[in-house]
Amino acid sequence: MKTDTTFNLSAWSAEHLDHVERALERWVTADAPVGVDHGAPAALVEAMRYAVLDGGKRLRPLLVMAASEAVNTDSSAPTSDAALRAACAVELIHAYSLVHDDMPCMDNDVLRRGKPTVHVQFGEASALLAGDALQALAFELLTPDDEKMPATQQACLCQLLARAAGSGGMAGGQAIDLASVGVALNESQLREMHRLKTGALLQASVMMGAACGDASGVALAALKQYGAAIGLAFQVVDDILDVTADSATLGKTAGKDADQDKPTYVSLLGLERSAAFAQELLAQALQALSQSGLRNTQALQGLANMVVNRLC
Amino acid sequence: MKTDTTFNLSAWSAEHLDHVERALERWVTADAPVGVDHGAPAALVEAMRYAVLDGGKRLRPLLVMAASEAVNTDSSAPTSDAALRAACAVELIHAYSLVHDDMPCMDNDVLRRGKPTVHVQFGEASALLAGDALQALAFELLTPDDEKMPATQQACLCQLLARAAGSGGMAGGQAIDLASVGVALNESQLREMHRLKTGALLQASVMMGAACGDASGVALAALKQYGAAIGLAFQVVDDILDVTADSATLGKTAGKDADQDKPTYVSLLGLERSAAFAQELLAQALQALSQSGLRNTQALQGLANMVVNRLC
Repeated sequence: MKTDTTFNLSAWSAEHLDHVERALERWVTADAPVGVDHGAPAALVEAMRYAVLDGGKRLRPLLVMAASEAVNTDSSAPTSDAALRAACAVELIHAYSLVHDDMPCMDNDVLRRGKPTVHVQFGEASALLAGDALQALAFELLTPDDEKMPATQQACLCQLLARAAGSGGMAGGQAIDLASVGVALNESQLREMHRLKTGALLQASVMMGAACGDASGVALAALKQYGAAIGLAFQVVDDILDVTADSATLGKTAGKDADQDKPTYVSLLGLERSAAFAQELLAQALQALSQSGLRNTQALQGLANMVVNRLC
Repeated sequence: MKTDTTFNLSAWSAEHLDHVERALERWVTADAPVGVDHGAPAALVEAMRYAVLDGGKRLRPLLVMAASEAVNTDSSAPTSDAALRAACAVELIHAYSLVHDDMPCMDNDVLRRGKPTVHVQFGEASALLAGDALQALAFELLTPDDEKMPATQQACLCQLLARAAGSGGMAGGQAIDLASVGVALNESQLREMHRLKTGALLQASVMMGAACGDASGVALAALKQYGAAIGLAFQVVDDILDVTADSATLGKTAGKDADQDKPTYVSLLGLERSAAFAQELLAQALQALSQSGLRNTQALQGLANMVVNRLC
């Protein structure tokens, strides 16, 4: 593994976030795509934009772009259109899941990214529809009328995203979460819940980035391990922060898991062992990268570090 | 246009519905797809199956398969795997939209296809998640690990479905519907609402069927017209039936639109002119088929007749 001491994650992230924000601004609009004869109603698009724009750490898009760069041999090449579309599509799925998750029949949260949640701002029916439309838009982004993005890539990205979002992924994990309030899960059950609820989409972000280049079988297997490790680490750290951080720092209501008697890593392992587990998962992620045969993995390394050592 | 007096729509539909029911039974399960290492939680899948199986007229799947047969020159060929997947994917999108539409924050309906609605049976949170997961599953079905289904076809089907389901299609139409309660729409506004809310997915069903074969540009344009005409006709007839049929016949609550002061074709044109308009749209649909250059259009003709002259 090449260790490039000049790599600066903050600068890398700022540059790539700028691409993502501008692309989301452009793609989450009322304009009809080329070849389609009608646009979307303004009120619905306003709720969709509120849910997506100007907020969030954009971890998933950054993972897509970092993985895409890792598998592309020309490290100076700009982010490909495919990687940018994949990055935004994953973020739309993430954003829709937050909109629905915040609704009164789910977590009933009123604060998200420091703003009123979508149903508080626009009403429940609009929040429901905005989430539904964001999911569809994710698949629209992956299937442009664009010969620069081969059909094999479009189909592969749709497959990865659909599987990660659906009943065998994120939605499935949320269903387990729903059924687990007040239930004593053991560590293996808790891990399975998180692997689906949060891990599947984080891992898919990495694999979708990899699908934007030509990764070898060895590299793909390593990236899958990396994605699994940081996916779980993200949730372990989330559980820690739910206890240690305050709402202002998190931009959402802190302490909710304990209040709702939800099983967490902290309730199961305690704070200290949870923190040690997160560090162990970071080591696993970095080891997977070192065995990937890929050279340009600095951004993936940096993002793994950020996931585990973040403060919010 | 070939007119085959031996064509029997009931027999054709029964045979094709059998394929669809068996495919949905097989694909809406907790089993992980080949190549994926985890399945879905049983409770979520139970709600998904409840929403999808054993109910509904399956108009959209039948349109997919009828269009697929129309563009395939060998009329004796069995339904292709691609057409069956497309048929089921469209039905999953339709089913998810009903689940979400019935929820208390939307239409608050308790009866659907003669059964308690999903949120009544499983709770609101499960209904929300089941709908979300059904949407994702639609795109999973369209992107199998299957070399029989070329990537170009997979990508094309995903594109058609995503555009029809999203903010520029079904979800957009529902948002207009939401904003139209108690509002006086003129005919052009009403038509635009229905074109998105119901028409987009019906038209997409036809176009997805066409994408499962090799249709000429002329045929595609004609099928698009056919789809637009029956899409609108379906809604006009729906508005008529909301007034003239009872809940037992409809399998859902009748008279709701008038009760909720929603604009409908009947409130705008009256019953008689609405019925005449439906017949005019049927004539347009049949004319489009006759100009398509396609020979094997009996099923499409029969389905158009059924849409307009149905009693429930």
